[in-house]
Amino acid sequence: MALQARAHLCSLMPMAKQSKNAISPTREEDYPEWYQQVVKAADLAETSPVRGCMVIKPWGYAIWENIQRELDRRFKATGHKNAYFPLFIPMSFLQKEAEHVDGFAKECAVVTHSRLEADAEGKLQPAGPLEEPLIVRPTSETIIGELFSKWVQSYRDLPLLINQWANVVRCEMRTRLFLRTAEFLWQEGHTVHATAEEAMEETRKMLEVYADFAETYMAVPVITGEKTEAERFPGADATFAIEAMMQDRKALQAGTSHFLGQNFSKSSNIKYLSAEGREEFAWTTSWGVSTRLVGGLIMTHSDDDGLVLPPRIAPSHIVILPVIPKEETREAVLEYCQALKAALEEQRYLDDYVRVELDDRDIRGGEKTWGWVKKGIPLRVEVGPRDMESGSVFVARRDRAPKEKESISRDAFVAGIIELLEDIQGNLLSRAKAFRESHTRELKTEAEFIEFFTPKNSEQPEIHGGFASVGFCCEAELEDRIAKEHKVTVRCIPNDTRDASIPCIFTGKPGKRVIFAKSY
Amino acid sequence: MALQARAHLCSLMPMAKQSKNAISPTREEDYPEWYQQVVKAADLAETSPVRGCMVIKPWGYAIWENIQRELDRRFKATGHKNAYFPLFIPMSFLQKEAEHVDGFAKECAVVTHSRLEADAEGKLQPAGPLEEPLIVRPTSETIIGELFSKWVQSYRDLPLLINQWANVVRCEMRTRLFLRTAEFLWQEGHTVHATAEEAMEETRKMLEVYADFAETYMAVPVITGEKTEAERFPGADATFAIEAMMQDRKALQAGTSHFLGQNFSKSSNIKYLSAEGREEFAWTTSWGVSTRLVGGLIMTHSDDDGLVLPPRIAPSHIVILPVIPKEETREAVLEYCQALKAALEEQRYLDDYVRVELDDRDIRGGEKTWGWVKKGIPLRVEVGPRDMESGSVFVARRDRAPKEKESISRDAFVAGIIELLEDIQGNLLSRAKAFRESHTRELKTEAEFIEFFTPKNSEQPEIHGGFASVGFCCEAELEDRIAKEHKVTVRCIPNDTRDASIPCIFTGKPGKRVIFAKSY
Repeated sequence: MALQARAHLCSLMPMAKQSKNAISPTREEDYPEWYQQVVKAADLAETSPVRGCMVIKPWGYAIWENIQRELDRRFKATGHKNAYFPLFIPMSFLQKEAEHVDGFAKECAVVTHSRLEADAEGKLQPAGPLEEPLIVRPTSETIIGELFSKWVQSYRDLPLLINQWANVVRCEMRTRLFLRTAEFLWQEGHTVHATAEEAMEETRKMLEVYADFAETYMAVPVITGEKTEAERFPGADATFAIEAMMQDRKALQAGTSHFLGQNFSKSSNIKYLSAEGREEFAWTTSWGVSTRLVGGLIMTHSDDDGLVLPPRIAPSHIVILPVIPKEETREAVLEYCQALKAALEEQRYLDDYVRVELDDRDIRGGEKTWGWVKKGIPLRVEVGPRDMESGSVFVARRDRAPKEKESISRDAFVAGIIELLEDIQGNLLSRAKAFRESHTRELKTEAEFIEFFTPKNSEQPEIHGGFASVGFCCEAELEDRIAKEHKVTVRCIPNDTRDASIPCIFTGKPGKRVIFAKSY
Repeated sequence: MALQARAHLCSLMPMAKQSKNAISPTREEDYPEWYQQVVKAADLAETSPVRGCMVIKPWGYAIWENIQRELDRRFKATGHKNAYFPLFIPMSFLQKEAEHVDGFAKECAVVTHSRLEADAEGKLQPAGPLEEPLIVRPTSETIIGELFSKWVQSYRDLPLLINQWANVVRCEMRTRLFLRTAEFLWQEGHTVHATAEEAMEETRKMLEVYADFAETYMAVPVITGEKTEAERFPGADATFAIEAMMQDRKALQAGTSHFLGQNFSKSSNIKYLSAEGREEFAWTTSWGVSTRLVGGLIMTHSDDDGLVLPPRIAPSHIVILPVIPKEETREAVLEYCQALKAALEEQRYLDDYVRVELDDRDIRGGEKTWGWVKKGIPLRVEVGPRDMESGSVFVARRDRAPKEKESISRDAFVAGIIELLEDIQGNLLSRAKAFRESHTRELKTEAEFIEFFTPKNSEQPEIHGGFASVGFCCEAELEDRIAKEHKVTVRCIPNDTRDASIPCIFTGKPGKRVIFAKSY
């Protein structure tokens, strides 16, 4: 059911007069600042007194809970079980895998003491030094590997399919809410297999779980592919990722799945006795997505009026806004709204029910309405005495202009609510796909490549280019030079074209089709 | 539907010969070691290479997930929203509330550095010292208070009802899986109110949420009451707790709810503008339960054959054990079992469905059966060719003796499954209540008190006494002396008798009825 825009004779709840848009600056004016303002206006998160650590506020956390619920369902459906491992990793563990420690040592929170003591002046000081410093986990391959080495004895114990929902810490210097924070929430899958083939199959399967989730739940279209060596997870033999295009045309790596080969099984001594009675090193994988997904969600759909949420991931689907022109109509309007809320909440949507807010706060109508626009709620429903009389409701979709509203029959609205939510969901995905396609170019020469990534006079320097789909020989030195000269990197070697060879646009050598882009 | 024990002519799957019980030692022989062995045999958790930190294994974590799901539902139903706050707390924050810092400084994990660097010999060393050390949160009143001071401006912002699911760290020296670990998982509710009355109402309401959850979901009967000053949360004006009796007759504090008065609002400067335009300090509460609940669950129900799980909290409700005497019957038996599993899984149970395992692993029947007994699964169902022929299944309840099994019609079993699960649930609660009652005494004199807490010759020193319900004047010095002399403390001043005055059995002064017990 697509709502048609129709003129309505009497706008019962006029929007507050907005000279321009609800978010200032707009995307065009200053994209990074627009992002911060959207997060703030939707009350999703804020910085904390602890450098680099964010506070996830209820509306933002509810999005994360919805992400968790659906991913968790998919992990369990693919045979994984959740477990929980220590927050701390002994410093020596990190050192077991050489590339791994190089990758993470530069940003570790180090615990060195186990209590506080007041000094002579009464000031607290760290006391009780630890024999061995502990690292707050930046990722858990080493500690989980140590435990898996005991859990895995025989081929009968394999595959071992474990997932953990946890917080991790990487002391990033330049942080940005959701996209890059010192502490973040994530899940990390860790699996052990008898053969390289099975481990690779798992690596690819979980990448597909992420890709399908991103597209079907978050309405975020992604490209799945392999990373080049330069962008590989420290200690992995191969890293695969899902890459999404944000509205500044930069790529966001939204999830990764690593084929770890036997690197961690050798450093952690994960061995199994095969059916033939031979002792073999196992093959492992790890894969993760984090609260960064929320950042990707925001930057994919939001507009200059604030957050836009796909219904499937929205904390609430509908807000009912009672319109009470005269005090004596209050009771009747509120009762009508309560009944509407109850009727909507009985509708099954996905694994849950339709979620409805009834906002009867005693504040100005315009302030209230714009508050919900900025929070990205998919549907706003205004109900006043006239709507009651005519048995109708006045509906606005967040994927349309804020003033585009339609009066429809209350019963038709309730009966068609799932279709309407799914229409918004589908529309957001199509829009995001169209955006990505309009900023993806197949390029044939280095000159075209340079031209694509050079801002035109008419463009603001922050927003230009996009995804360049080109043949590339994947030589590390060349990749490094391109990164330095043009500030773009290979985002991935897309899975769907990885088997075909095409000439490199830089060297003419045989290469693969890759996606170059600026990235977060 | 109560299953009657009936003789079965041909036990299709004989239990492995067990000379005694599945868990050694038994509860009577060595209670603390019995507990460790139950945890191990059920594969719930294990110690980790990081001192004091446990690994929660899938079966144990699934219990915690079930606890989380139901509590989270209840928190949301009472108007709370989830959010997430930083793992780290600046050292200076902890110092803001004098009693609070005294309570937690002795067991803080302190982060002092932000990276690792290799020294001249290539050994990693902490580097990048922080200007101010960070504490890994032992609880979050101080950091959340700092943020709440910005979130709360006016009476319109109140009440503010927030909950966080998180990990916390207290560097305990003597740890025990689930009961006391350096890192543990918990939830911490933090709320802000305009008046003392509202804050106290919240404190009591959440205590009741915990009590009802413990009894109706975990089948753990609890006493709700207030703590004496000695056992109060550092910084609280009043602490309430739920106390459960374990099978060694000791008390386990299973959840707490704190009325924080204005202590944290003053130290964190949480003020609001009242409707009358006055600036006032707010009133706050906090309340929490942790993975310790899993320890309490284990110690309430388990027996000398291992874990016993109440169905409402069990990761799986039923295991189907195919009995395949001859290879040519395999396919038919497995098909029959698959169909049975599917039929059971269609049954709605609480907010979910019946959860069924089909264990077709190729291991000895006795080993398999005892494995599930030790894991505490509520129902074991054996199905072999003869059962198929007669359209029956062979059922054993975990709350009965392991060899007590009954053959019943397959269709009656499926149709009555919810009733059967609820019968087990109810039976476990009754059993736990009866146990607690049989070890609770109203005592009238100090002599009776001493007698009650002195092991008799026939008893092992670890298991004796119980809950002593006595009049007590609540003088701190006397409480301290009793704790030192008899190793028992006031567990709580029960809510249901707190308004009545009765004489103290030690001093004769007017007092309250309290529960004394040894405790975890």
